[in-house]
Amino acid sequence: MLKMMACCGGCLCCQCCCNEGETRTPEELTILGETREDEDEILPRKDYESLDYDRCINEPLLEVLEGLDKKKARRYEAIKWILVFAIGVSTGLTGLFVDFFVRLFTQLKFSLVGQSVEECSENGCLALSLLELLALNMVFVFISSVLVLIEPVAAGSGISEIKSYLNGVKIPGIVRLRTFICKVTGVLFAVAGGLFVGKEGPMIHSGAIVGAGLPQFQSITFKKIRFHFPYFRSDRDKRDFVSAGAAAGVAAAFGAPIGGTLFSLEEGSSFWNQALTWKVLFCSMSATFTLNFFRSGINFNKWGSFQLPGLLNFGEFKCVDGDKMCHLWTAVDLAFFVLMGVAGGLLGALFNCINKRLAKYRMRNVHPKARFIRLLESLLVCMVTTLVIFVASVTLGECRDLVSTNNNTSTQGSVNEEVNSTIRRFFCYNNTYNDMATLFFNPQEVAIHQLFHQNATFSPVTLLLFFVLYFFMSCWTYGVSVPSGLFVPSLLCGASLGRLVANVLKINFHMQIYSGTFALIGAAAFLGGVVRMTISLTVILIESTNEITYGLPIMITLMVAKWTGDFFNKGIYDIHIHLKGVPLLEWETEVEMDKHVPYPNLYPDQSPSEEWTLEERFRPLTFHGLILRSQLVNLLICGVCYAENQSSASQPRLSHSEMTEDYPRFPDIHDLDLALLNPRMIVDVTPYMNPCPYTVSPNTCLSQVFNLFRTMGLRHLPVVNAVGEIVGIITRHNLTHEFLVAKLRQHYITI
Amino acid sequence: MLKMMACCGGCLCCQCCCNEGETRTPEELTILGETREDEDEILPRKDYESLDYDRCINEPLLEVLEGLDKKKARRYEAIKWILVFAIGVSTGLTGLFVDFFVRLFTQLKFSLVGQSVEECSENGCLALSLLELLALNMVFVFISSVLVLIEPVAAGSGISEIKSYLNGVKIPGIVRLRTFICKVTGVLFAVAGGLFVGKEGPMIHSGAIVGAGLPQFQSITFKKIRFHFPYFRSDRDKRDFVSAGAAAGVAAAFGAPIGGTLFSLEEGSSFWNQALTWKVLFCSMSATFTLNFFRSGINFNKWGSFQLPGLLNFGEFKCVDGDKMCHLWTAVDLAFFVLMGVAGGLLGALFNCINKRLAKYRMRNVHPKARFIRLLESLLVCMVTTLVIFVASVTLGECRDLVSTNNNTSTQGSVNEEVNSTIRRFFCYNNTYNDMATLFFNPQEVAIHQLFHQNATFSPVTLLLFFVLYFFMSCWTYGVSVPSGLFVPSLLCGASLGRLVANVLKINFHMQIYSGTFALIGAAAFLGGVVRMTISLTVILIESTNEITYGLPIMITLMVAKWTGDFFNKGIYDIHIHLKGVPLLEWETEVEMDKHVPYPNLYPDQSPSEEWTLEERFRPLTFHGLILRSQLVNLLICGVCYAENQSSASQPRLSHSEMTEDYPRFPDIHDLDLALLNPRMIVDVTPYMNPCPYTVSPNTCLSQVFNLFRTMGLRHLPVVNAVGEIVGIITRHNLTHEFLVAKLRQHYITI
Repeated sequence: MLKMMACCGGCLCCQCCCNEGETRTPEELTILGETREDEDEILPRKDYESLDYDRCINEPLLEVLEGLDKKKARRYEAIKWILVFAIGVSTGLTGLFVDFFVRLFTQLKFSLVGQSVEECSENGCLALSLLELLALNMVFVFISSVLVLIEPVAAGSGISEIKSYLNGVKIPGIVRLRTFICKVTGVLFAVAGGLFVGKEGPMIHSGAIVGAGLPQFQSITFKKIRFHFPYFRSDRDKRDFVSAGAAAGVAAAFGAPIGGTLFSLEEGSSFWNQALTWKVLFCSMSATFTLNFFRSGINFNKWGSFQLPGLLNFGEFKCVDGDKMCHLWTAVDLAFFVLMGVAGGLLGALFNCINKRLAKYRMRNVHPKARFIRLLESLLVCMVTTLVIFVASVTLGECRDLVSTNNNTSTQGSVNEEVNSTIRRFFCYNNTYNDMATLFFNPQEVAIHQLFHQNATFSPVTLLLFFVLYFFMSCWTYGVSVPSGLFVPSLLCGASLGRLVANVLKINFHMQIYSGTFALIGAAAFLGGVVRMTISLTVILIESTNEITYGLPIMITLMVAKWTGDFFNKGIYDIHIHLKGVPLLEWETEVEMDKHVPYPNLYPDQSPSEEWTLEERFRPLTFHGLILRSQLVNLLICGVCYAENQSSASQPRLSHSEMTEDYPRFPDIHDLDLALLNPRMIVDVTPYMNPCPYTVSPNTCLSQVFNLFRTMGLRHLPVVNAVGEIVGIITRHNLTHEFLVAKLRQHYITI
Repeated sequence: MLKMMACCGGCLCCQCCCNEGETRTPEELTILGETREDEDEILPRKDYESLDYDRCINEPLLEVLEGLDKKKARRYEAIKWILVFAIGVSTGLTGLFVDFFVRLFTQLKFSLVGQSVEECSENGCLALSLLELLALNMVFVFISSVLVLIEPVAAGSGISEIKSYLNGVKIPGIVRLRTFICKVTGVLFAVAGGLFVGKEGPMIHSGAIVGAGLPQFQSITFKKIRFHFPYFRSDRDKRDFVSAGAAAGVAAAFGAPIGGTLFSLEEGSSFWNQALTWKVLFCSMSATFTLNFFRSGINFNKWGSFQLPGLLNFGEFKCVDGDKMCHLWTAVDLAFFVLMGVAGGLLGALFNCINKRLAKYRMRNVHPKARFIRLLESLLVCMVTTLVIFVASVTLGECRDLVSTNNNTSTQGSVNEEVNSTIRRFFCYNNTYNDMATLFFNPQEVAIHQLFHQNATFSPVTLLLFFVLYFFMSCWTYGVSVPSGLFVPSLLCGASLGRLVANVLKINFHMQIYSGTFALIGAAAFLGGVVRMTISLTVILIESTNEITYGLPIMITLMVAKWTGDFFNKGIYDIHIHLKGVPLLEWETEVEMDKHVPYPNLYPDQSPSEEWTLEERFRPLTFHGLILRSQLVNLLICGVCYAENQSSASQPRLSHSEMTEDYPRFPDIHDLDLALLNPRMIVDVTPYMNPCPYTVSPNTCLSQVFNLFRTMGLRHLPVVNAVGEIVGIITRHNLTHEFLVAKLRQHYITI
C-alpha cells in the first residue's frame, strides 16, 4: 500500500524510507471475500487505496506548466476531445459486438429448440428438446464462467466497482484490458446461455475500462503495447476519462446519453466541471450514435438512418384507441403509481435482502480461491433456469387469442414484424398462442417489449407466476460468478407486475387505462426499489421511453420506491460495495455527525500512531509539504541524491514525464536494491513534494473536513495546528461512516 | 458593503468596530451603468458582494445542531421537499398567468387588426389598420416600460442576473417581490405589445425569485408579511432554493425539467450535491406538470391529460412522405449541420457584437436616472417594430398555394386546427396565402411552429427578408428597458435561416431532406451562437423536440456554433454581466494563470492595505477565526458585551435565530447609536466567530486557491502563513480574470 509521509524538513535521509512497513501486492488485494461473523461488523478494509484527484503541484509539474502556451493548451484540449470521441465510438462498437453475437447465438438457439418443440409436441419427444436446450445453455454458461475464473473482477455487473472507482477508491484490476476482454465475452455467453442477466450493467463497466485504457496508449496486460504518449498519466485525468467511458456505457446500453452523463455525475463527480460534463455528454452521444448507426445498418439494412438508439429500448409508446388518440396516463393514475412505487420499494428491499444473505453465505462458505465450486454454482443456476423456462413454457402457459396483436401500438413496421415473429404457439392451436412461452422463450428485451406494447394478451396467473419465478431466479443469479447485469431482469420483473396491476384494474374495475404505461411504471418501481438510484435512473428511463410526458410519473414512482426501500436496507450496489469493504464516501455526513462537531483531535489521535511510524520520532514537526511513497521510491530508483559534502544543487533532476512514466504501476519499495543505497547520500525531496496541499486545522468540524475531502477528491488531508506543526493526517478511512460511528462511540465511552 | 475582519484575539474592543470605512446603501448599488471610456477597461465593480455558501460554524449554530435529532432532521428535510414542490407549482402558475394573458391580448389584437386588414384590403383603408395596431402596441409597451421604470432590475431577460446570483454574487433587488411583480406583468405586456421578445427568459428570473422568496415567508417589499419561520435564513439555503426556482423557470418555459436542472447546475452549482439535484429536478417536474395540467385543461378542455409541456414547445417532429416513413435526418445531413453551426456561430457573434455596442452606447449617453429617455426608446422600438411587421406583411409577402398544409405532420388535431387558423391571406386569393404575413402577423411561437412543421410554404426571398428584419430588430430590442427574453427571437431568426437552407437544398440541389429538421438545426445554431450555453441548452432543445434522435445533430451544431462564436466574443449573457461589472468567477483559471503559479504574496500584497485598516495596527496577528461585519453590528446592537472588571461569562448570549433574524438585510453600522456604546465595555466575539474556516498558505498556487474558493462557494479565504499568522484575505475580486491579468502584468513590469 502506498502510504503518505509528511515531509519533515525539506529533505529526508534515504535510510528512513526503507524502514517503512510491508506493502501488499495487488494480487493479494483481489481476494474479495473474507470470512466474517456478524453482518454489522463488516468494516471498510484498509487495503483499498484512494485515487488522488488533487494535482501534486511540484517543480516538475510547474516546468511542464511553464512550457505550456496557449497553442499547446489548445492542442492538449483538442486531444482530449478526440479521445472522448474515440472512447465513445469504441464503447459503441463494444456494445455492437455484444449485441451482434448475443442475437446470433440466441436466434440460433431459439430457432433450433423452438422447432424441435413444435415437432415434439406431436411426437411427444419433449425431453429431447429440453436436453438440446440444456446442452446449449450449459456450454455457453460454462465459457462465461471460465472467463470469470481467469479474471474474477469481471464477475457481476461491475457497477459497484465503477461506482467505487468514481467515488475515488482504487480497486485493483478493475480497469484492465484483461478484465475488459473477459467481461465483454463473458456477458455475451451468459446472456446467450439463457441466464436471467442483462448485458447493460457490464456495458457500463466495459465503457469505463475503455475510458481508462484508451488515453493511456498502453496496457498492463500486454506490456508490449506502449506508445510514447506522455499525457494523462495521473489519477485525475484517468478518472475524468473513466467518467466519460462509464457514461458512454450507459448511453450505449439504454440509448440515453443524458442519463449516462448524469450517472457519471451522480456516482462520481467530486466537483461539477462544465468543460468535463460537456465532454462526457459528447462521449455519450458518440457511443449512442455509433451503436445506432451500425445497428440500424446491420439489422434493418438502412445505413445512415438512426432507428435503434440503445441495446435496450422500450419502443414507442403511443396510445391509440380505435381511431382516436387516448392518453398515456392521466392525473388519476398517479395515485396508483404511488402505490406501485411503494410495492416496488418493498419488493426491491426483499430482493436486496435475499441477495445480501446469499452473497454472505457464499463469502462464508466458499473460499475465494475455490473457483471450481463457483463454476459449479453457475452451471447449477444455468440448469435450474433452463428447467424453469422449459417446464413453465410447456406446462404453465395459457392459450390466448392472437387477435389483439393487430392493436399493436408500434408504428415501425420492422419492430411490428419482429414482435409477431416472437409469438410462441407451444401447444396452442386455432389462432391462439402460449402466453407463458411467449414471455419465457424469447430474449428478455423482446419480453419487455411485449409487456409494454401488447394489448391484453397475458393472463393474470401467467403474469404472477412469471414474476415469482423471475424474481427468485434473478435474485440467485446476481452474484454467481458470471458477468451479469441487473437492469433487464429487474425491469422484466417489474413490468410483469405492472402489467398484472393493469389487467386487474382493467378487467375487475373496468378502468380506462393504458396497460403499457402501467407495465413501464411497474418496471420503474421495481428497478428503483432494487438499485435506488435517483436522478440518473429517472433520466435514463425517460430517455429510453423517448417520451417526455412520462417524466412526472417515473420520477414520482422512483422517489416513492427509493424512500420505501431505504426504510429497510440500502441499494443493491451499495450492499455489494459494503460487502467488499470498500471505504465509500457518502455525499454528506449525517446529521448525527454534524452535531458532534467540535471535539478536537478526533482524527489526529489515531493517525500518527496507526498510520506513520516515521514521524513519531521527530515530533513536533513543522509541515512543509506532502510527498507520496511512490514518488520517494521513484527518486531512490532513479538515484536522485547528493553526497553529504556536496550542495543540493548537484542532485540530478527528474522531469515530470520521468516521474509519471510508470503510472499507474509505480515500482515497489521491494524492487529497490537496498545494497546500492549509500547511507551517506541525501535526497532533497523539496522539488518533488507538493508544497501546499489543502490542510485543515485540528478543530475544524467534521462536515467541513468531509466536504473538502469529498469535493476536492483528496487522498490525504494533513491536519496542521496553529503554529504550523503537523498533528495528523486524514485519509478516506477516517471519514467512512463506520469509522466515524466507531470513533464517536468510543468518545462517549471515555466521557 | 459588508467587510470581513480577521479576529485579532478572541475579543475585540467596541470602539474599533466603529472606525471602519463607509458602507454604501443598496440603493446606490442599483445604478447599473457607469460611464466608461474604453471597452477593455470595464473592471469588476468593487461594490458587489459575494454570497456565502460556506456555513459559519459558531456556537449558536452548534447549539442548533446539538438540538437536532433524527426526527427533527427528517422534519427539516420534509419541509424542504414541500417547499421545492411549492416553488415548482408557483412557478408553473406564474407561467400559466403570463401565458393566459399574452394569449388573450394577442388574440384580441390580431383578430381585431386582422379583420380590419381583410376589410381594408378592399376599401383601401390600410392606414387605419396600421394606426389601430400601432395604438394597441404602444399602449402595451408603455405599460411594460413604466413597470421597468418602477423596478429597473426587471429589465432584460434576467438570465445574466440569475447567472451572477448563482455564481455567488449578490445583486441588490434581484430576488425581491417587487421585481417579480414588475417582471411578470412587464413581460406579459411587452410580448402582447408585439415586440420581438420572448417570455421564456423572464420566466427563469421569475422562478428564481419565487425560489428565493417562498422559503423565507417574508418579503422586503411588503414588510408586514412575516411569519415565524426561522429556517433557511442563510445564503446557502437561499441559493439552493434559487437554483431550484431557476430550474423550475426553465422547466416551465420549455417543458424541459432535465434541461432546467442542468441549467441550474451549469450556471450555479459549486459542488454537485445529489440530494439537492434530486430536489431541483422534482421542483422542475412540478413546474412543468402544473403548467401542463392547467394549460391542457384551459386550452383543450381536457383536464387531467398532459399535452402542452412548456410555454414554448416545438410540436411533434414526424417525417411522413406520402404513406411511408422517411428519416428526420441521415448521416449525410450532419455535414450541413456542421456548416450551419459555423454560420450560426458567426451570426451569433455579429449579433452579440452589435448588441454590445448598442448597450455601451446607451450606457455612455443615457444617464441611468434619465428614465424618461429609456421609456421613449421603448416606444420608438415598438413603433418601428409595428411598422416593420405591418409594411412587410402587406408589401413584401408572396402568395403561395395552400395545398401543402394537408401534409402537415402534426397528428394532434387541435394543434393542426390552430396552425390552419393562423394562416394569413392578406391580399392573396384563390386558395393562396401571404407567407410573410403568416410569419409576422402571428405570435412568435406560432411562427416557429410553422417554420418547423409546414411543408414548402415559404419562398426563399421571404425567409431571407424575415431573417434580416428579425435579426436587427431583436438585436435592438434586447437591451431596451422592458422585460425581454432572447430565446424565442433567436430561435425564430435561426429557424428562418435553417428553412432557407432547406429550401435551397431541396429546390436547387434536389436533395431528399426534411425541412423541419433543418429549421430546428438552424434555430439551434443561431441560438447557440448567441447564448453559448453548452450542456443545458442541448438538453433543453432535445426535451423541447421530445425526440431523442435529435441529440447528436443538436449537440454537434451547438458545439460548432459555440466554438466559432467564442473565436470572436463571449456569449450575450456574459457580455451583459461584464458590462455591469459583476465579478463573475469562471469555471477554471486559464492555462496562462496556471503557469504563473508560484509567486507568493500575489494576494496578500494588496489585501491588507486595500481591504482592512484595522489589522494593520496590530500586525503580526495570529489567526483565530472569522467574523462578519454584520455579525459584529448585530452583537453591538443587541448589547452583547461585558464590563472590563467582569468575566466574559457575564456577557449575554444570542441564539442562532436571534443572530439570523434580520437576514438578508442586517442592520447597518450607521443604525447603531454610538452614544450608547460604552468604551469601557468589551465584546467577546469568540462564540460568534467561525473558528476554523478554510484557509490557504501564502504560496498556494493560483489554481488551487481558485478551485477551493469557487467550489466551496466562499466569500472570504484567509491566507495564513506557516506560523499561524494571517497575512491576507482573498475575496472574489482577487480571483476575477481582470484582476489576475492586471496583477500579472504588474508583476512582469516589476521584473
